[in-house]
Amino acid sequence: MKNQNFNQLRSKAVRKIEKSAIVEILRVINQPGMISLAGGLPAPETFPTKIIEKLASLVIKKYGSLAFQYGPTEGLKPLREALVSFLKEKGVETTFENIGIVSGSQQFLDLIARVFINPSDYIAVEAPTYIGAVDAFSPYQPKFLEIKTDKEGILPSDLEKKLKQKKVKFLYLVSTFQNPTGRTMSEKRRKEVAKVIKKFNLLTIEDDPYGSLRYFGKSPLPLQVFAPKQTVYLSTFSKILSPGLRIGFYVAPKEVFRLINIAKQTVDLHTNSFSQLIAAEYLLTGDFKNHLPKIIEIYKKRQEAMLEALEKYFPKDFSWTKPEGGMFIWVEGPKNFDSVKTYWQAVEKKVAYVPGCYFFVKQGQGKNTFRLNFTNVSEEKISEAIKRLSEVIKKNI
Amino acid sequence: MKNQNFNQLRSKAVRKIEKSAIVEILRVINQPGMISLAGGLPAPETFPTKIIEKLASLVIKKYGSLAFQYGPTEGLKPLREALVSFLKEKGVETTFENIGIVSGSQQFLDLIARVFINPSDYIAVEAPTYIGAVDAFSPYQPKFLEIKTDKEGILPSDLEKKLKQKKVKFLYLVSTFQNPTGRTMSEKRRKEVAKVIKKFNLLTIEDDPYGSLRYFGKSPLPLQVFAPKQTVYLSTFSKILSPGLRIGFYVAPKEVFRLINIAKQTVDLHTNSFSQLIAAEYLLTGDFKNHLPKIIEIYKKRQEAMLEALEKYFPKDFSWTKPEGGMFIWVEGPKNFDSVKTYWQAVEKKVAYVPGCYFFVKQGQGKNTFRLNFTNVSEEKISEAIKRLSEVIKKNI
Repeated sequence: MKNQNFNQLRSKAVRKIEKSAIVEILRVINQPGMISLAGGLPAPETFPTKIIEKLASLVIKKYGSLAFQYGPTEGLKPLREALVSFLKEKGVETTFENIGIVSGSQQFLDLIARVFINPSDYIAVEAPTYIGAVDAFSPYQPKFLEIKTDKEGILPSDLEKKLKQKKVKFLYLVSTFQNPTGRTMSEKRRKEVAKVIKKFNLLTIEDDPYGSLRYFGKSPLPLQVFAPKQTVYLSTFSKILSPGLRIGFYVAPKEVFRLINIAKQTVDLHTNSFSQLIAAEYLLTGDFKNHLPKIIEIYKKRQEAMLEALEKYFPKDFSWTKPEGGMFIWVEGPKNFDSVKTYWQAVEKKVAYVPGCYFFVKQGQGKNTFRLNFTNVSEEKISEAIKRLSEVIKKNI
Repeated sequence: MKNQNFNQLRSKAVRKIEKSAIVEILRVINQPGMISLAGGLPAPETFPTKIIEKLASLVIKKYGSLAFQYGPTEGLKPLREALVSFLKEKGVETTFENIGIVSGSQQFLDLIARVFINPSDYIAVEAPTYIGAVDAFSPYQPKFLEIKTDKEGILPSDLEKKLKQKKVKFLYLVSTFQNPTGRTMSEKRRKEVAKVIKKFNLLTIEDDPYGSLRYFGKSPLPLQVFAPKQTVYLSTFSKILSPGLRIGFYVAPKEVFRLINIAKQTVDLHTNSFSQLIAAEYLLTGDFKNHLPKIIEIYKKRQEAMLEALEKYFPKDFSWTKPEGGMFIWVEGPKNFDSVKTYWQAVEKKVAYVPGCYFFVKQGQGKNTFRLNFTNVSEEKISEAIKRLSEVIKKNI
């Protein structure tokens, strides 16, 4: 026992997540002069700091010690109530009892895994899928089943096939402006997927962090609307107010709601009360409705700049998604294109992106794809970055 | 698969924590007219709401978007740096690199368990111990080893004996004004315990939420000072600023620090940035030093009122701790006294406490003991509650 290394005492859960290849590859993005299209950060200029300052005072006057005392695990009632109408406008009909508050939607992803996953249980994810969710699930040592996708989201036929083969604990997907592809499931597809979900009574996590960031077109109804007894609708204030406040929220079937709360109780007791009430007042005062168009105006221009630059500079055998909102564009090169190899040449030219392979759970996929973020860089820099990137790419094909 | 109940899909981790007897017993404490000495809440009148309002504005002006953007998992540098001198005054010498920020100290308890516990691993705790820690560790399915305690804390001889018998992943204890007993380990005892910790290179979590709430006497040096390579020092802003802000902090050996951060990354990315910076400025502006005496003034009087009432009303064969600070007093009755049976009679008379048995990991202990909290009730009510309780007790012995 003497001189033992604490590292040797690690649990299996932590060994499982020790090495993240993507952390390695992204280590270079803070180099001076780098234009990073790799991240997924909101632009700091979208944060309504003046509004938050006003709301902080308002919250202290209106709620007093409620903002600073221990609170209920499921969240403070003023925020849960304010979310009822927010959700109704998205098409999700519910009451405050079914709305829970979490310390960022990332926490929900950890909790749902904690509640349901025993080692070697199957969970189903999109191919490609959101890395943060895979990272949240992995410590619980599940096996991942990839469900094939096309331009409209997961394929109902492939989902059904996989569900017949394996007992799946839950399905996780991002329904609108998906991370990494930017794609949105059509309403028709949502109905078809909901049919399979209902047939197999499959617990489904519909993650919707980007839905409010719509620059064109009309929002489809959430998947949750078509299978409410099986689907958790999960969202966040990170993209419409501030990620630093760490406020996520979800609507869940009653039993799932109860189990998430039991788990959350021992994990962090409850979410920051002061920030919950700031988020509540952001909705109640109308500040959200006034401020959202300003965020959209900034991002819409940046997305246009990126699409224009891609059109102008990229080789003809490359294609990319043209999302009606969100934060990401997904680029697909010809079959022989290697986005990891190109990555290292791109960072030499001071441009970074995320190679597509990192968004697949099973290795050997997405070799010719990559993800671009357009929210946290100015139009000029976006244009310059895409130009530089196109030059690197042209040398490689 | 059809019509399956999601409840049946629960993981072992969640099954483990489903039923909490203490939740059942405390369900009644919100009845009208109840004087509850059962909780562990700070008094809302101790929250420096005016100061927080001022600091919220200051943080926005001084730090801008840093307060609202995604932040590093280990915490924001201004808070970690401000904590260096806060900790130095307690005797803990460290640099900001070794200080981590968590979403309340409860989160640290979950993370340390996640990092180190595989099912059936042994961890050592005091008898009696803090329930919240047991609740945090239990989902990871450890076996608990109870270490015997006396008035000065855990017995080094018993610790050594248990360490020789079993391979223990870590030891958890509350060194000052312990929850539930209010007891403080003497400095002499700390040195003796540290000797055992070093001999066995035993990872130790020293939880110190109450140390700043000292009403008399002089603080002993933290246990961490005597075994810094093995000991994590854990504390919180919950008792000196506000629990609703959910800001905990810890000093850990380098390897442990690294592993905690790997685990925290997937669990909630990072702790609320805005509140971290408010906590930083609370220390940096001197507001903490001005405000702490006001908190102490309130609690000291309440503790005096409780000790006076116990002296005045309680039977001679009852004894209780007389802590120099903290939030709790621990009462011990004669051997035949049954604090659970008495509890139900007490709540009929509208007084609540926590029966002592709930603070032991192994059943059948502490039958004749109970915990009283004095921080969240006025002096008059404390006196009245102790009087009522003494009447109930006298009927039972």
